[in-house]
Amino acid sequence: MTATPAQTADAVELLGLVAQLEHLAFARLAADAAVAPTPQHRLELSRLAAAAVQRRDRVLDRVRELGGEPLVAMALYDGVLDDFDARTEPSTWWERLLTVYVGYGVADDFCRLAAGGLDDTSRALVLEVLDDAAHTDLAVAELDAAGTDTAVSARLALWGRRLVGEALGVVQRLVVQRPGLVRLLDAPAAPDSAAGADAAGAQAEQSAAAEPAQAPVNQSPTKLFGQLTAEHTRRMTRLGLTA
Amino acid sequence: MTATPAQTADAVELLGLVAQLEHLAFARLAADAAVAPTPQHRLELSRLAAAAVQRRDRVLDRVRELGGEPLVAMALYDGVLDDFDARTEPSTWWERLLTVYVGYGVADDFCRLAAGGLDDTSRALVLEVLDDAAHTDLAVAELDAAGTDTAVSARLALWGRRLVGEALGVVQRLVVQRPGLVRLLDAPAAPDSAAGADAAGAQAEQSAAAEPAQAPVNQSPTKLFGQLTAEHTRRMTRLGLTA
Repeated sequence: MTATPAQTADAVELLGLVAQLEHLAFARLAADAAVAPTPQHRLELSRLAAAAVQRRDRVLDRVRELGGEPLVAMALYDGVLDDFDARTEPSTWWERLLTVYVGYGVADDFCRLAAGGLDDTSRALVLEVLDDAAHTDLAVAELDAAGTDTAVSARLALWGRRLVGEALGVVQRLVVQRPGLVRLLDAPAAPDSAAGADAAGAQAEQSAAAEPAQAPVNQSPTKLFGQLTAEHTRRMTRLGLTA
Repeated sequence: MTATPAQTADAVELLGLVAQLEHLAFARLAADAAVAPTPQHRLELSRLAAAAVQRRDRVLDRVRELGGEPLVAMALYDGVLDDFDARTEPSTWWERLLTVYVGYGVADDFCRLAAGGLDDTSRALVLEVLDDAAHTDLAVAELDAAGTDTAVSARLALWGRRLVGEALGVVQRLVVQRPGLVRLLDAPAAPDSAAGADAAGAQAEQSAAAEPAQAPVNQSPTKLFGQLTAEHTRRMTRLGLTA
């Protein structure tokens, strides 16, 4: 069963978001590299920035395969994180790391859930791109070290709550403004669901070592925000921080 | 004939400079991407930034192969372009592009000349890394378009003269501070020069399409600056600008 034109348009709508988020991750990681505390951090963050460019371009290749126009697909999300960035200006290196970890964590989880409604090829690509956990590992290693100090921990826990509130605000606006994303979240199954079980198995295997991707199911707004909040709590717990 | 420990130390000294310059190119291109006038430019500049990271890491791999410590080799050149950057703050997008084209052009030419004194493997790597002309192509295409306006051309020609002066100042400081680089510039031939002729042939072939690498010969300071200035003039002419 092939995707309908409407389903393809929705797929391009989500791929555009993923590409824009990867591009913003590049910009953010490059800026972080410029102010990183050690040369080792500078090298590592620049590598993560370069990897984000490659992930973005893989997603844009898929947009092109589906007959979409990469720049148009990304332009739907111009400024998507401007409010988030303006309201979450970090004041320390750790706050900076936590901002990416939490902010992109929520955005990635949202894309992962919406990916459940994609065709198999697009879904596998999105899940693979989002499962690249290198940046998470860096943030966790650094924040673990910071987290041994109780005062720092308390401040970061507070910062995390602020971040997740703002990140959920971004998701709220996306859900209101982009009906294609809502259709993907609500899709009962992928159009070529015959191969779905295998794909889901492969995904589960792949993501076991990184972020566990939840099985896509019908999403009410309440359920969506519940899932995103649960994932956020899991992430904060991994750092030994109170969500 | 294998390289002596002193020759290897000199090689690491040059490789550290190339790696530092590629890292700075990454930072610069990423910053340019953030202020680029169109989404297409943002994508293209981010790709160039990512490519610079990969070139840097290939050079750092070679440092490691030679028994050097990547971070130590790069640290020799911490802040190497700080003065240059502070004195050449571009005021337009074209000035920004020309800054990278001229500034990195001079630095790359210097490294190319010094590479003549390296062992074959390191030399081939440095020349290959420096011959990656994608950024040059972008700058030339953009500046060509800008250069059709006489007033813009005149301003850019003036800007180019300022840039080359500052860039030669950077080279001057390098020559004074890093004796290993001077030894490489002065090296009569590579230590394993038996294979030198083949390598030089391959280089000439490879670089014909990009920046012509001049054959390494004994370098007096006057000769060095003469060569760098000649290359700069060639680059400006390529843009239709007066050097």
